Amino acid sequence: MNVSQTCKIEITKSLVSKINAVDFENLSFGSVFTDHLFECDFKNGEWQQPVIKPYAPFLLDPSSRVFHYGQAIFEGMKAYKDGSDAIWLFRPDENFKRFNKSAVRMAMPEVPEEIFMSGLNQLLQLDKAWVKKGSGNAMYIRPFMIATGGGVIANPSTEYKFMIILSPVTSYYSGEVKVLIAEHYSRAANGGIGAAKAAGNYAAQFFPTNLANKAGFQQVIWTDDATHTMLEEAGTMNVFFRINDTLLTAPVSERILDGVTRKTLIDLAKSENINLEIRPVLVSELIEASKNGTLKEIFGSGTAAVVSPIAGFSFQDIYYELPKIENTVALQLKNKLTSIQNKLEEDKFGWTVKI
Amino acid sequence: MNVSQTCKIEITKSLVSKINAVDFENLSFGSVFTDHLFECDFKNGEWQQPVIKPYAPFLLDPSSRVFHYGQAIFEGMKAYKDGSDAIWLFRPDENFKRFNKSAVRMAMPEVPEEIFMSGLNQLLQLDKAWVKKGSGNAMYIRPFMIATGGGVIANPSTEYKFMIILSPVTSYYSGEVKVLIAEHYSRAANGGIGAAKAAGNYAAQFFPTNLANKAGFQQVIWTDDATHTMLEEAGTMNVFFRINDTLLTAPVSERILDGVTRKTLIDLAKSENINLEIRPVLVSELIEASKNGTLKEIFGSGTAAVVSPIAGFSFQDIYYELPKIENTVALQLKNKLTSIQNKLEEDKFGWTVKI
Ligand SMILES: Cc1ncc(COP(=O)(O)O)c(C=O)c1O
Ligand SMILES: Cc1ncc(COP(=O)(O)O)c(C=O)c1O
Repeated sequence: MNVSQTCKIEITKSLVSKINAVDFENLSFGSVFTDHLFECDFKNGEWQQPVIKPYAPFLLDPSSRVFHYGQAIFEGMKAYKDGSDAIWLFRPDENFKRFNKSAVRMAMPEVPEEIFMSGLNQLLQLDKAWVKKGSGNAMYIRPFMIATGGGVIANPSTEYKFMIILSPVTSYYSGEVKVLIAEHYSRAANGGIGAAKAAGNYAAQFFPTNLANKAGFQQVIWTDDATHTMLEEAGTMNVFFRINDTLLTAPVSERILDGVTRKTLIDLAKSENINLEIRPVLVSELIEASKNGTLKEIFGSGTAAVVSPIAGFSFQDIYYELPKIENTVALQLKNKLTSIQNKLEEDKFGWTVKI
Repeated sequence: MNVSQTCKIEITKSLVSKINAVDFENLSFGSVFTDHLFECDFKNGEWQQPVIKPYAPFLLDPSSRVFHYGQAIFEGMKAYKDGSDAIWLFRPDENFKRFNKSAVRMAMPEVPEEIFMSGLNQLLQLDKAWVKKGSGNAMYIRPFMIATGGGVIANPSTEYKFMIILSPVTSYYSGEVKVLIAEHYSRAANGGIGAAKAAGNYAAQFFPTNLANKAGFQQVIWTDDATHTMLEEAGTMNVFFRINDTLLTAPVSERILDGVTRKTLIDLAKSENINLEIRPVLVSELIEASKNGTLKEIFGSGTAAVVSPIAGFSFQDIYYELPKIENTVALQLKNKLTSIQNKLEEDKFGWTVKI
């Protein structure tokens, strides 16, 4: 992988920076954006001149396909600043590949690697003052693509816009997370788009998640839609279960997003000699393990929340509380991961890429 | 139902009409829009002043939730001009109710009936010169709502835009339609959003539909995602099957859109004394009926295509051709329906509403 600067980008700088107006100690996740954005349009069958320009609203026709037929995909990744002010990306090749996998599934054009990588690189260079160092601080990076072609007929657009926007974030503290295991609602179908980071997958979860929130749960753990017996993933996280000293996580599938954090934690667990099984995990075995005291931990993994411990889960109106233990595997893996991301520890895996 | 004019709309007229530049004999479906659009924003927990203004692109922030999380719903309906230049809507209450059902499922605010109906009414009044009379001609009406609130965090927006745009259309001729029965891909999950007219449902179908197109089929008939044994619906149409003299169509469910044309055809079939069964229809019985010669017709129903006869279907690489028969039930029902819509026949059902 190579974060190239080879792609020629037309750059228009903003006249004044908004940075002084930002309270970096009190950032609400994903709500503040840097001075610039990267943009590249696709039309007449090809990608046009990429540009970097001041972050600003842009014009769209009311009949744009993204509004009517939901052709929209995105990625979520982070950049970190080390002690000597260098900026590092974490496994950007994985996000790039997944972005194009999503593009194919949503009948959208793939973005060339040079455009994706040089856009990322040069945008971060330009807004590097916005990347703060220190534990928990990161630049959340949001590459996304939308269908801009007009016409209210349900077929793929011929025009698209690929953009990258940047949002500085601090560590994501969500309080105690209790989850509801889905018994009726679902996020993905067999043969559907669950494995794509498609916009439509997220809105689909809001209503059932609101119901869970009202019942006192912060998240839903989705199950397979046909039988609701297999534990799949949370809203924006993959999930791990620890029974005795074995970590369990579902294999990725057409219904489950192939999370970068998930695959990283799998590699870290292996290198830490933690037992790990990648296999379908049943709701029934979770309940049994909770009852007989062998269920030790549940945690989610994702770019935004990193590793998020879960305090308990509910299924069929029964709440199962997890034991409060010290020295959790969740914390062990999280510390390993963030040390590598923040360049506090040698990256023997080659995951970090300097821009 | 009442197409009220009670809601006060702020109207800004366009200075020049685009109508003279339009070739009404050669309209490509959903590609031409009238001079004006209706718009109403939702913010601070309430709907704001509705406006009608010239059709034009509008500004959105790059972080708008519609781009990232797919909160977007729509409706599709038609208006018709009768012999004396009056304009009629067809069952607008059904579209209104379905729109708000979609809104609830996508965690979006419901649109008040006065706003929906007076928007529709006054917009059509203003652009009435664009509604052409004569068989097949209609004004396709596209109400839609998108999440406009900014922020790259996966939760519901607090701001929305509801719009109505109008596109004059002629009869929809799609040529001979051969369909592929889905064996792997799916459009909806149990407990998912298949029953909502959510933007994300459509983009999900583009890739498998492209594959079908390449194999020589114009449409896919979706099956249930768990077993692929039950016939559900086509891309933007519900489906009917005629075996001997009985019409069959699947019951609507969480996976299937409750089509207005479908329910209308059901009522028309009853009033024409056609046998009709609303029950799950199996792929296996379709194949058996095709083999033993009892399968007479398959047709799709939807606002855009009205009634669309299907020439044959493929399943597991075998193509089953339908008999070419005259006096089809499809044609009988289509003629009944369009006569009522175009006010050529008495509407004893009370489906047509004058604006
Ligand atoms: C549905 C879903 N599952 C899992 C994840 C975790 O993936 P990653 O670790 O690549 O961030 C995400 C998102 O970021 C997601 O949206
Ligand atoms: C998925 C789907 N099924 C069926 C239909 C038919 O519904 P209606 O008859 O209300 O147009 C439509 C759309 O218009 C649709 O989008």
